[in-house]
Amino acid sequence: MSIASPLTRFVTAVLFLIGLAGLVTAAQAASNTGKPGVVIQVSENNPAIWNLALNNAKNIQQDMGKENVNIEIVAYGPGIHMLKFDSEVAPRVKEASANGVAIRACGNTMKAQKLTEKDLEGSVQVVPAGVIEIMNKQREGWAYIKP
Amino acid sequence: MSIASPLTRFVTAVLFLIGLAGLVTAAQAASNTGKPGVVIQVSENNPAIWNLALNNAKNIQQDMGKENVNIEIVAYGPGIHMLKFDSEVAPRVKEASANGVAIRACGNTMKAQKLTEKDLEGSVQVVPAGVIEIMNKQREGWAYIKP
Amino acid sequence: MSIASPLTRFVTAVLFLIGLAGLVTAAQAASNTGKPGVVIQVSENNPAIWNLALNNAKNIQQDMGKENVNIEIVAYGPGIHMLKFDSEVAPRVKEASANGVAIRACGNTMKAQKLTEKDLEGSVQVVPAGVIEIMNKQREGWAYIKP
Repeated sequence: MSIASPLTRFVTAVLFLIGLAGLVTAAQAASNTGKPGVVIQVSENNPAIWNLALNNAKNIQQDMGKENVNIEIVAYGPGIHMLKFDSEVAPRVKEASANGVAIRACGNTMKAQKLTEKDLEGSVQVVPAGVIEIMNKQREGWAYIKP
Repeated sequence: MSIASPLTRFVTAVLFLIGLAGLVTAAQAASNTGKPGVVIQVSENNPAIWNLALNNAKNIQQDMGKENVNIEIVAYGPGIHMLKFDSEVAPRVKEASANGVAIRACGNTMKAQKLTEKDLEGSVQVVPAGVIEIMNKQREGWAYIKP
Repeated sequence: MSIASPLTRFVTAVLFLIGLAGLVTAAQAASNTGKPGVVIQVSENNPAIWNLALNNAKNIQQDMGKENVNIEIVAYGPGIHMLKFDSEVAPRVKEASANGVAIRACGNTMKAQKLTEKDLEGSVQVVPAGVIEIMNKQREGWAYIKP
């Protein structure tokens, strides 16, 4: 048994914790080394923009493989009309959702415009606040696209 | 005293530095594990967009608590008009600023449009270049929103 | 030779690998501690936006020094017209490219609009999908600007 042993063991344990902490922190930071994600913002009342957003989602799925990428479309403000059940792109919204694209409506906008879930295309889910959803996704390492 | 001791100590020291470097690098990278921040870009001469930007900031503060999030609105190009003292949203700009939202005007745009600080709402601060301010905030881990 | 030595060495080796892994992961995550980059999206058929995008790139190069920053303009959807050889900003596109700004056209958009490389300003390079190019740059730590 060497004299250095207890100290060495203590330093070794400290090092282990530091190394482990570094690894965990790095892994959290490096969410961009995991499965890619992209959040697509729609905040305009403009069907050309809605179709461009849906085209973007479709192209990303076709080119990367839909199992290899997370895509979420978040509509808020004047963009909320994209997600109404009688929107001119409602069939495309439903199709995108069936293909695994998450479609989210801003709860704050819905309150302000006195809309309820019944006013939305059936596959749409409501989040409390569209902008915070978009912030959170970026914090998780997702890319951001505003078509 | 064991024969292995000096080597063990050296390897231990190297490990300590590597672990520490990993932790520090990770912590720098992981600014997105700190207080959330969001930079909101206004580059259009369009009061509807200005109000949407101000609504976004207000909603984020209401939903997250204004002490829990950093918000900065950066106006440049045609968006600079939002921040003039006689802009139709000047009272809302002043109110947002009083609530802790940082409001920044692009110095390059001001030079190009021959504007001075006297032309701006009193709470606005000028940064050298709006786009570089927006880049820097993103590099610090802030989310980006273009309403 | 101390009794603890073989165990200490093993633990030391494990620690070394953990520390190293942490450092490498952190370094990958922390691409935002390397040379700054910014990807500028153009997805509108609007010369005012095209000029704003080109002004943004120019200002960034002037203020940061063009050797200190990577800039890429990606045009897709209705924005593709910016990059045609007969676009009204074609001379500025050529100039930006000569100054080291990477100019990229979306291959998916070109197929959809039956365009070939001959239709584009000579310095433009085609990428398979504009949105995926923009996603990838953000994953590498680049900032995103939509003028």
